[in-house]
Parts: sequence; C-alpha cells; structure tokens
Amino acid sequence: MSKSLKDFYVIPEVDSVRTIAIASACSDDIDLACEAVKIGIARFIFIGNAKSINEKLVGMEFPKDMYDVVAANSEHESASLMMKLIQDGSADIPMKGLMQTGTFMKAILESDQGLRTSQLISQITIFEGINNKLQLLTDCAVNIEPDLKSKIGIINNAVEIAVNLGLNNPKVALLGSVETVNPRMLDTMESAVITQMNRRNQISGCTIDGPLALDNAISFEAAKKKGIQSDVAGNADILVAPNLLVSNTLSKAITYYANKESASVIAGTKRPVVMTSRTDRKNNKLNSIAIACYLHTKL
Amino acid sequence: MSKSLKDFYVIPEVDSVRTIAIASACSDDIDLACEAVKIGIARFIFIGNAKSINEKLVGMEFPKDMYDVVAANSEHESASLMMKLIQDGSADIPMKGLMQTGTFMKAILESDQGLRTSQLISQITIFEGINNKLQLLTDCAVNIEPDLKSKIGIINNAVEIAVNLGLNNPKVALLGSVETVNPRMLDTMESAVITQMNRRNQISGCTIDGPLALDNAISFEAAKKKGIQSDVAGNADILVAPNLLVSNTLSKAITYYANKESASVIAGTKRPVVMTSRTDRKNNKLNSIAIACYLHTKL
Repeated sequence: MSKSLKDFYVIPEVDSVRTIAIASACSDDIDLACEAVKIGIARFIFIGNAKSINEKLVGMEFPKDMYDVVAANSEHESASLMMKLIQDGSADIPMKGLMQTGTFMKAILESDQGLRTSQLISQITIFEGINNKLQLLTDCAVNIEPDLKSKIGIINNAVEIAVNLGLNNPKVALLGSVETVNPRMLDTMESAVITQMNRRNQISGCTIDGPLALDNAISFEAAKKKGIQSDVAGNADILVAPNLLVSNTLSKAITYYANKESASVIAGTKRPVVMTSRTDRKNNKLNSIAIACYLHTKL
Repeated sequence: MSKSLKDFYVIPEVDSVRTIAIASACSDDIDLACEAVKIGIARFIFIGNAKSINEKLVGMEFPKDMYDVVAANSEHESASLMMKLIQDGSADIPMKGLMQTGTFMKAILESDQGLRTSQLISQITIFEGINNKLQLLTDCAVNIEPDLKSKIGIINNAVEIAVNLGLNNPKVALLGSVETVNPRMLDTMESAVITQMNRRNQISGCTIDGPLALDNAISFEAAKKKGIQSDVAGNADILVAPNLLVSNTLSKAITYYANKESASVIAGTKRPVVMTSRTDRKNNKLNSIAIACYLHTKL
C-alpha cells in the first residue's frame, strides 16, 4: 500500500480526467477546484447561484475547458441537478458544496436516481499514520453509535476501500480503552464477537482483532510490553472506533495535534462521493477529491 | 502557565528533595528512579523483594544516600508498608511499582491511614499541546463512564491541579463530537448543563464551555470557521472527555501520533500519587514523577 496520500494524485490522460459536480458551489469550493485542476486531478461542474459563480471566476486563472456552470435557485435544486448530471453521465462524482449535509445525503441516497446500494453507508478517514504507511479510521461522520451489525457493515466498507487502494487482507483493529474483554463494557464484548466471526469467516477479506487500545493497535513496542499475541496488534491498517465520539476526537487529534494529512471518503455508495466539511484543511479537501477520483477508476 | 513539562523539573535544595516510596519496585522502576535522582527531582524508597532490589542496585551508579530498601513479601505487604512510610513521614509520595492497580488504589484509599478526601478521585494527563502551552486532559484512567456529578468532580480536580501548576481561571472545554446540543446525545446535554452551572457560579474558578469538538476546543481557526462565540473555544487549557473511551484514545493519539511529552497525575487525594503504566514511555514516567514532586511543594 502507498505511504503517502500524494501517491493518489494520479494525473490521468486528459480524456479520463474525472468530472466532479459540486452542489451549491461557493467561493471556497471554486478556489479548491482551481487547485485540483492545476494538479490535474479533476474537472468541475459548479451548480448554484450562476451570477455569484461567474463573478468569482472572473479574473481567476481557471482553464475554460475545465469547468461548467449550471444555475440552480436553491440547495434542493442544486442537489437534484447534481444527481441528474451523474445519471446522464455528464459528471462522475458528486460533491457537497455549501449546503446542509442532510439535503446532500438525501439526494445521494434517493431511491430512484440515488447511489444507494444494499450496503450500509459509512465514512472513512485515510491518513498518513505511523509505521510509515497509510491507515484508515472509521466511522468519523455517519454512524453515531453503531450496533454490532452496523459495525460489521462499517468494517466491510473499510476493507473494500483498503483493497481498492492496493492493500489486500488489511489488518483491522477494533479500538477500545482496554485489551481485555469486560462483560461490563459492551464495546469490548462486541469486539470479541466480531473477532471470532472473522475467525469463522463470517467476515472475510481481512484479519480482525479487538478490543485493542490505540497504543496496542498501532505500536509494536506497546503491544509487546503488554504481551499481546495478535496478528493485528502494533500494525493495524484499519482502526474501527466503537462510536462517533471516539472517531471524531481521534480524527481531529490526528489533524490538529499530529499535523498529519488526511482524506475523507464515503463508502457503501455505488460510486465515490466527496463530502468534506467547511472546517477541513485545504490539503485534506484536495486529498479527498484525489482519492475519490482514484477510487472512481476502480469501478 | 509553563509551556514545557521540563519547567517542573525543579531542582530543590537538598533538604527539600521529596522522597518517593515505590511499592513492589521492579528493575525498570529502579532504572527510572536512578534517572530521576540524576536530574535531582527525588529520592526513593524501594519496597519489595529486597534480594532482587539489592542485586539490581549492584553496579548501578546510584548514590547511596538517595535510596533505601524495605523488604516486603507480597504486593499487599508492599502497598501496606508504602502507606506506613507515608504516615510516619519517612516518605512524601506513594508510587505504584509492578503490582495490580486495584491493590495499589485500595491501599491509597483505605479509610484509616489512606489518602482519601471528600473529593472524587480522578486522573489527569498533562501534555505539551498546541498554541504553545501545556494542556490538561481528563479522565484517562479512573472514571469509565462518569455521570453529571462525577464530571463536575473531574472538572474541580483538574482546575485545582491547573491552578497549582500556575494557571488561574483555566478555560475548560467539554469535548463532544459536535458543538450543538442534541437531545438525542446525552453527552451534549450534560455539557450544556455544566456550562450553565459554571455561569451560575455553581462550578467556580474556571470558565467552562461545551459541547465542543476537539478542533473547536483547541484551534482558533476551526472555531472561527464554525462561527462559535466562546471564551474557551480555540484556546482550551483543560479538555474534559465525555468518557474513558474518548480520553484513553485521545491520550494515546497524543503520545503515538503526535509524539508529545506528557505526565499523568492522580487528583482528589490528600497528596500527589504516582501511578504510571508499564507501557508508558520513560520520559512520560519521569515527567509524572517531577510533576508529583512539584505538586507536593504546593500542599
């Protein structure tokens, strides 16, 4: 597997550059798109207030053949037009601009022309971890308090993304605050159950172990000191958080305390979806666009 | 407030060096003590298997006046003798060696000669955060799923420690995954309640705000982007986690992803207590000893 997110800034032949449709594209989105175009990772369709968008584009060095503008009068219409562009093949990847997450996700998951599959929808943060490799952390955005079945869906989605990024049979750590199973701590019980289901091939394509505290999951030194026997401990590729409170805090520690680059992807949809937060750092947004384009080539 | 944990490596006059009694001192503990003595932050009493301890000390450059050895035949006896040494004034600070946490804490909290107060017992991790200052994170070790009343105890303990470290009226962020109050997410409701109790002076000596996601708590840039009006956001001194899963994972991210130095203290006891984990990094253990000695001077 690659060591850096920049490895996925693949510059494809011009005819294969993916087109991203941004619903309710705002000024920041257009600046971001301009950078993505300069790097050569995508072209764009800006959907929203055409007057504002065109005014923003005046004076920018944005190659005219690398964007289109589609007028929409509301968030709802923006989202609806975005999905139409995906359906008719004019765009490859939908992206959230400055609009409510709920409005965006509703359009993405609509029953008739949406991108819903039978899989659970989940989010994955990909970041430049320790042990000199990329690591995946899930779910930092969609599932607040996943039950056992949802956790299995979250794992399957992350394994699929890891494989598409070039990592076969990823090592999956189920995060906890301890490495022992404690009947009074539900997350440790569920981690034990999922680990055993993996041994019985009820969850396949990966090697799972948990519960593991973060240090035991990612540091050989810490796992060794604790005497943990595990194929995953010390070298996890995928970190599965017990809930959103943990994943959200951990993902922000990775950005703000450790200053590591990351990308965010939505999994479980028919095709990649870009949904960044307006508080994400610019590089992380670019990484997310690049990863979505890369994953689109794997469809 | 100081910017570095090294600022608390105060080298006192010889007659005021604090004496630390280590219950069930093992080989690693003696190596650690030797380093602490070299830096000049403490002297030690090693309690445990006297033969093993003395064999370990042979050939070490450990000044003879900087340690004593007390024989004990079991973990229980070690812990009991440690508390006797504290009671009779031979030692100032109790420290856990290689023994069960439960045995150690039981001795510390014993009703007759223990160190229990009317306060809740909690743990605080002090680390070199961002914004060029020390930050406190609590509770990473003792309270698994604190209720509202326990959270208030945890906050009061952390504020007391912060003040003793030189920080008056610390800014306290109540961590969550969002900054909005959501009636379906209990932690956000409790954070709102605690924030308002602080405004009513039911919790004093600090400025509290929450819920705040980690980025909003520690990054001005993130808080500004979200438009959060707060005296705490972007500049928190104390981070209060909603539960142990969050704090444990965050504290390990700070060590393993961000490579930041930290110290761990127990609060709510009559005097400082050193309780490090055998998986803690050596520097973090030294920091914990130094901070305990420093806090002892504030009694």
